Amino acid sequence: MSETTESKTNGGNFFEDFTVGQVIEHATPRTVTEGDRALYGALYPTRFAVPSSAAFAASVGLDPHPVEELIAFHIAFGKTVPDISLNAVANLGYAELRFHRSVRPGDTLATRSEVIGLKQNSNGKSGVVYVRSTATNQHGEVVLDWCRWVMVHKRDPEAPAPETVLPELKKALEPGDLVVPEGLDFSSYDFTAAGEPHRFDDYAVGELIDHVDGVTFTDAEHMMATRLWQNTAKVHFNTEARPDGNRLIYGGHVISMARALSFNGLANAQLIVAINGGSHVAPAFAGDTVYAWSEVLDKAEISDSIGALRLRLVATKGRDETTTLRTEDPSTGSGAGRYKDGVLLDLDYWALVPR
Amino acid sequence: MSETTESKTNGGNFFEDFTVGQVIEHATPRTVTEGDRALYGALYPTRFAVPSSAAFAASVGLDPHPVEELIAFHIAFGKTVPDISLNAVANLGYAELRFHRSVRPGDTLATRSEVIGLKQNSNGKSGVVYVRSTATNQHGEVVLDWCRWVMVHKRDPEAPAPETVLPELKKALEPGDLVVPEGLDFSSYDFTAAGEPHRFDDYAVGELIDHVDGVTFTDAEHMMATRLWQNTAKVHFNTEARPDGNRLIYGGHVISMARALSFNGLANAQLIVAINGGSHVAPAFAGDTVYAWSEVLDKAEISDSIGALRLRLVATKGRDETTTLRTEDPSTGSGAGRYKDGVLLDLDYWALVPR
Amino acid sequence: MSETTESKTNGGNFFEDFTVGQVIEHATPRTVTEGDRALYGALYPTRFAVPSSAAFAASVGLDPHPVEELIAFHIAFGKTVPDISLNAVANLGYAELRFHRSVRPGDTLATRSEVIGLKQNSNGKSGVVYVRSTATNQHGEVVLDWCRWVMVHKRDPEAPAPETVLPELKKALEPGDLVVPEGLDFSSYDFTAAGEPHRFDDYAVGELIDHVDGVTFTDAEHMMATRLWQNTAKVHFNTEARPDGNRLIYGGHVISMARALSFNGLANAQLIVAINGGSHVAPAFAGDTVYAWSEVLDKAEISDSIGALRLRLVATKGRDETTTLRTEDPSTGSGAGRYKDGVLLDLDYWALVPR
Repeated sequence: MSETTESKTNGGNFFEDFTVGQVIEHATPRTVTEGDRALYGALYPTRFAVPSSAAFAASVGLDPHPVEELIAFHIAFGKTVPDISLNAVANLGYAELRFHRSVRPGDTLATRSEVIGLKQNSNGKSGVVYVRSTATNQHGEVVLDWCRWVMVHKRDPEAPAPETVLPELKKALEPGDLVVPEGLDFSSYDFTAAGEPHRFDDYAVGELIDHVDGVTFTDAEHMMATRLWQNTAKVHFNTEARPDGNRLIYGGHVISMARALSFNGLANAQLIVAINGGSHVAPAFAGDTVYAWSEVLDKAEISDSIGALRLRLVATKGRDETTTLRTEDPSTGSGAGRYKDGVLLDLDYWALVPR
Repeated sequence: MSETTESKTNGGNFFEDFTVGQVIEHATPRTVTEGDRALYGALYPTRFAVPSSAAFAASVGLDPHPVEELIAFHIAFGKTVPDISLNAVANLGYAELRFHRSVRPGDTLATRSEVIGLKQNSNGKSGVVYVRSTATNQHGEVVLDWCRWVMVHKRDPEAPAPETVLPELKKALEPGDLVVPEGLDFSSYDFTAAGEPHRFDDYAVGELIDHVDGVTFTDAEHMMATRLWQNTAKVHFNTEARPDGNRLIYGGHVISMARALSFNGLANAQLIVAINGGSHVAPAFAGDTVYAWSEVLDKAEISDSIGALRLRLVATKGRDETTTLRTEDPSTGSGAGRYKDGVLLDLDYWALVPR
Repeated sequence: MSETTESKTNGGNFFEDFTVGQVIEHATPRTVTEGDRALYGALYPTRFAVPSSAAFAASVGLDPHPVEELIAFHIAFGKTVPDISLNAVANLGYAELRFHRSVRPGDTLATRSEVIGLKQNSNGKSGVVYVRSTATNQHGEVVLDWCRWVMVHKRDPEAPAPETVLPELKKALEPGDLVVPEGLDFSSYDFTAAGEPHRFDDYAVGELIDHVDGVTFTDAEHMMATRLWQNTAKVHFNTEARPDGNRLIYGGHVISMARALSFNGLANAQLIVAINGGSHVAPAFAGDTVYAWSEVLDKAEISDSIGALRLRLVATKGRDETTTLRTEDPSTGSGAGRYKDGVLLDLDYWALVPR
């Protein structure tokens, strides 16, 4: 037997492989199908009327029938993993995520990323890479784009540090930045079919909503979800990849679960149009029972029939009826302590609701 | 932080919220897709030729390709849960379920229910609500309808009792009540392709069929099935919802599993056209191995090529080769004792077979 | 209660039920849908660009969008189980599997088998049955065919032995035997989109590729996969079917998992066109972590833009970075000893790659 050849497998990029302005075309375009919609509905308790019903979607101007926005996000994001974050120490954050148009079965998504910032860490062994990633459909139209920054190992600690470039990123997108999907019109919105009577004016900034319901995770389900998005990070699939023998649940699985749970109280927050940022505060594993609560952070009128709510979506392990995010830490003041135990996710996004 | 706001979440209806004649339009219309067909085939060992093969379905007059009838039932039923049975003590029964037309990918189902009966319990704390639910497609055509009665808590024990109204429900639908799907014609039925040679005349009233095969349940599978139908009852998903930490398997999951297992011996019972009633005799959990047997309860000629079999479908935990339903209880006589241990489901339905 | 009737269930064929030249039309034609593509992607970490992207597939001449070849194989194979191998002691091998044309959503597959050989075992209690199985689509066109031989019990040990007939089977198909899917042209192949730069000339006979990644099996996933192919062998689904209470994983699940893992290093081995043979060396169970490695066994130029690689695909329980198949056994010489512990699968196939 000849020697093992590993050179054909992808080893991912290291910090010194990135340069500001570099554009990376990510592999494996992926066509969305009705099968994705069905699997999404089997994996998450989603009941939002637009992705659930072609007839409802058509009644608000969306025909053909779009899929849930997070399907597009997960697919687009998964493509970047082999090139951007295979050697990541940590995903540090994301910002300025915008959905530019609806995705329908038959659409093929591809993603490219541009390096927009670099900063070597003072230890010289790693650095932070900032990228803006853009997913397009088969017509070359932009479907979504977002910024993300990750801490990546250096292959060679002796490699010289690049010039530090730090991109300016918005803490939150402005209402004027939001893109309303082409054709959307909530003027003949059917609140009964959608499941709740609450419209834009019924939500107040500062309002907190405990979404009540909980779901216990299983390994089979989170692996199926993560594979569906062609995300290949080993820790999600391989019990031999972590010392504790657990499969780490993909953070996007927690996002989709929390978003689906938020139907109960936010049934009319039909479409996600932007994600301002998010923190995966703690890891989640099979056997954990996840609950969610939301806070209304901001509001904006978009058109005669459409409003936007800026929402904080918090996923917790075990239900937290207090809907508080942080410990009361006297040294920092109320609301500015560290995250409470049990918080899994702190997500900040904009959704469209009927007025 | 302001106080928790729970008012936006659905608390469900209580006994005193229902009045006879009241009509409830249930939320979240749902479009059926080819993804549902595939998932149904991944979750249940179904091999009935009509839903399996578009070519076979077309050869018996069903084109475009319909999905399994139980897909329509589960979706239609799931819609009623948030309004009818969220505060149910128990599902007491159902009756007079009829399928009126085939469901195809692209059809959007919505369900409404009319309250047809009410009877407060003598304890004054709960009552029985009778509803007739009707699922329609995007053209407003009736797809299926059925009656169901559930015992529901009162919110306020002091609320006055309504006038008792008890609907008249048939113990079983008559052959003349059955609706043959438009276009169905078994005159050129391919028994080889369907998998078994047995036709209408080969089945005798009183005949018992042990379906032989067994399947062991998993949590991931029953949760995916139940979510697919947008059934949100907490006990199916949340290990914290029951004192024993088990997730209760949705009764419809047991129905679909037993129906799929019944292929072995009833391969030509292609289409379910009615369900006369059913009892979920005992709860099922992950790790249980379910088997099924059937009894031919009645027979009827429907057309030159089509016959109907009225079948009892029994699901058991562990195989019961004796195919007996009840204990021999001397006080009530043979066949009228309580259900034997291990019986999970006792379902009574009509299916169409080739003559 | 009358007596149990088991006569309507399928008991399968025994050795003496087979005669050389006999043709068996297998039951349950099955229509492939986009749901199958999605489920395949949820169950296996496949990222091959042709089945992933309709746009990529069209760019290499395959429009409409074909599904993964192994979907067709699993469906076609599953149909033969109730007639050929329900009473099998062992699946002994297969050979000469060729894919003749692409399968697209909407295609309906049916399988028939011809008995091409018989040999009773010397113990008189069982025998080997050789069949050539052919799967066709709804137009009667051949989609794939293959030979398989299984050891089957006799119902009656006293039944006379048939004349021994042993078919001549090729150890491996020749390049000239391979069928290139109609329309396939790799001349404008996009290596960036496909994920790796390696083309035909970059692979050398004898080269070994460790595919690095591993996946831990779950019961829910392998059962869903196996059901999807309508394969009904009890041992895959029923914890009561084996003394150890484990559900045996369908060998085809291991094949698909290993093939998907082989993307990392063989991303351009886009299409399987033939399987020369394979051994399911050891059983696999939930909790096992499977890895894969490949060996280039042969190469052939097919057209100006297309080459073929003959590949050995080995799945192992636990990673084997040595990529060696057999123990060093001095009595037989290096490379000819028995399989090493941990080897699950040894598959020999032809794939098409861009030149």
